[in-house]
Amino acid sequence: MKALVINCTLKKSPEPSATEALASVVAARLSEPDVRTESVRAVDLPSAPGVVTDAGDGDAWPRVHERLPDSEILVVASPTWPGRPSSVAQRGLERMDAMMSETDDEDRPAACNRVAGVALTGNEDGAHHVISEISGALADIGCTIPGRAWPYWHLGPGPGPDCLEEQKGRDRAHSTGRAMTDNLHGVARALADRPLKASS
Amino acid sequence: MKALVINCTLKKSPEPSATEALASVVAARLSEPDVRTESVRAVDLPSAPGVVTDAGDGDAWPRVHERLPDSEILVVASPTWPGRPSSVAQRGLERMDAMMSETDDEDRPAACNRVAGVALTGNEDGAHHVISEISGALADIGCTIPGRAWPYWHLGPGPGPDCLEEQKGRDRAHSTGRAMTDNLHGVARALADRPLKASS
Amino acid sequence: MKALVINCTLKKSPEPSATEALASVVAARLSEPDVRTESVRAVDLPSAPGVVTDAGDGDAWPRVHERLPDSEILVVASPTWPGRPSSVAQRGLERMDAMMSETDDEDRPAACNRVAGVALTGNEDGAHHVISEISGALADIGCTIPGRAWPYWHLGPGPGPDCLEEQKGRDRAHSTGRAMTDNLHGVARALADRPLKASS
Amino acid sequence: MKALVINCTLKKSPEPSATEALASVVAARLSEPDVRTESVRAVDLPSAPGVVTDAGDGDAWPRVHERLPDSEILVVASPTWPGRPSSVAQRGLERMDAMMSETDDEDRPAACNRVAGVALTGNEDGAHHVISEISGALADIGCTIPGRAWPYWHLGPGPGPDCLEEQKGRDRAHSTGRAMTDNLHGVARALADRPLKASS
Repeated sequence: MKALVINCTLKKSPEPSATEALASVVAARLSEPDVRTESVRAVDLPSAPGVVTDAGDGDAWPRVHERLPDSEILVVASPTWPGRPSSVAQRGLERMDAMMSETDDEDRPAACNRVAGVALTGNEDGAHHVISEISGALADIGCTIPGRAWPYWHLGPGPGPDCLEEQKGRDRAHSTGRAMTDNLHGVARALADRPLKASS
Repeated sequence: MKALVINCTLKKSPEPSATEALASVVAARLSEPDVRTESVRAVDLPSAPGVVTDAGDGDAWPRVHERLPDSEILVVASPTWPGRPSSVAQRGLERMDAMMSETDDEDRPAACNRVAGVALTGNEDGAHHVISEISGALADIGCTIPGRAWPYWHLGPGPGPDCLEEQKGRDRAHSTGRAMTDNLHGVARALADRPLKASS
Repeated sequence: MKALVINCTLKKSPEPSATEALASVVAARLSEPDVRTESVRAVDLPSAPGVVTDAGDGDAWPRVHERLPDSEILVVASPTWPGRPSSVAQRGLERMDAMMSETDDEDRPAACNRVAGVALTGNEDGAHHVISEISGALADIGCTIPGRAWPYWHLGPGPGPDCLEEQKGRDRAHSTGRAMTDNLHGVARALADRPLKASS
Repeated sequence: MKALVINCTLKKSPEPSATEALASVVAARLSEPDVRTESVRAVDLPSAPGVVTDAGDGDAWPRVHERLPDSEILVVASPTWPGRPSSVAQRGLERMDAMMSETDDEDRPAACNRVAGVALTGNEDGAHHVISEISGALADIGCTIPGRAWPYWHLGPGPGPDCLEEQKGRDRAHSTGRAMTDNLHGVARALADRPLKASS
């Protein structure tokens, strides 16, 4: 089984990123003996604006898209700006829009039998909303969303320090991260044993 | 296996309701030989405002709540006013908030191993947003949301007739309803064969 | 000039309510020498489900609606459950839906030249989202929404105590409340001096 | 008085764009004798990801930002993908996040006394949600949002043709565009006569 973690931070490598920190916690836990996990920081792979799978010269999105069909588990990690999914996350969701019309060998939606979850960071507020927004888009392309597959890490109302500068909130982020990976593993294995068929 | 369809229309029985019409299409298809489906029009069972399971005298919500633990499949059907989940749907989600702290015999969240989907009607606009909002709340209490479990039926921008008065949109509502029930059945059966455990 | 504050808490009087506490701070500041402010706790006035102004016998919504045309300033105060506007707030917005077709003596939308803001409380998360949702609905009926007319008071991620039990967050709630009332007064007075006309 | 229309389509010039078509209708109407209107297609000016006003070499966002302080009226036009603001719109809102801490000569928020509206296009669904999302972000930086400043143009549920290929919906887009520009002009002039002060 394979997992792909797409970090949608606005910060290019190697700048430290709270979203990278949380995504790493999730990726580490996802990597059980039989789950190979890859991570990518999307902002390092410039994707042209558009709603197609391949936008031609210079477009790096195909390098992300090519990993999707083989990944039974997908995690989208995003910061919240301002209280909404990052533009890097939204760019990825737009590019995935093309998958709504892609099918596999058995004429099922390309993302059928895939499970997905969302990991969230931010200064202040907006976690549940952004989780709903991104989960909704991933369900639109066909992914199954396990319950409570949503660790989030932020510091409460008003301007304040970056999560990385604070200890507060880390324990909750780790425990919700554990719940997320357990639920992602569980549903992915259940669907591997008993896959969904093409809709009649 | 059991299914529960909660119709969150604002209209009390026996007033005709587009949401009732769509919910009936979904319920009929859910009712395969081994799936017993119950339907309830929530506005006929007045639920007190609050975030508890039982709000005391006169509160009818427990009559809905008692069917939830036994229902492997849950469908919430709602109109969109104005572009948001109905107040009846929101009342139900608030009452279900208490389930976030309820557990079953194996110490799992009460809604663990349950699947849920959303059926939407409305005049004009707002289907995807309302689906994300309600799905997000159901995932918060622990339900797994299959991909594309979202039939919707509305007529496009601007004021206009009620869906019930129009033929337009019915075919799409039926086909997305079929996809929804197939996906709900599929994921429910996969989780019945291989249930999620309590998170470590 | 008149102002109306509608508290959309789920708790009936006289139960203590964080939303009532924040609404009172806002109402007190709104009440300058020439602004008469009324407050109402909507859950104490049971409003039937529906999208009309008067739903007949036993429907208390008209007692709220009748204050709206005379109120140049409207504030909707709501808790967030779970991360969305309360069902009491949503019920009010549905009942206000009828105002989209109501006009005044000069054929302008009934809510034209009215300004509105949103005050938010909650345990954990969801302030900006709920503010956008409620503000969007109020703009749909024709209200003008001043910038930053949104005090909010919650305590950060994860389950925790009620706001009323904590000192934390009160200073920010008060300062954002002051900004809100200054902006509501300012825009209301500007529109009183130079009202919008019916659209050509 | 000046107005700025930012078209957040995903399509680079000179590709035809429904959002460009609607934005042009709005811009033409905004341009009364005393309102100078500029339009920009944001995707033609690549803006680096981030939440600062100037992101250094190669960053074109400053060329948009420099027009903002002088523009009493701001319109953000966006397509909806998939049912959410475009990544180009979200990128602009993230870059405007820095304006939350910028002030003018009188110590007021930089966007104080500015009015803003949203123009929307899309295939299918999502107009009201995207309007709320973008309006909410613009109110966060301090803009005042007039009621009903939201023309939208889409074609109803399900996949279908691009708006540009259809006559349907154009009349409604034009009439809501007229209402938008009348309300933007009206509130902008009211605030020009009686500006908001710095909050006490």
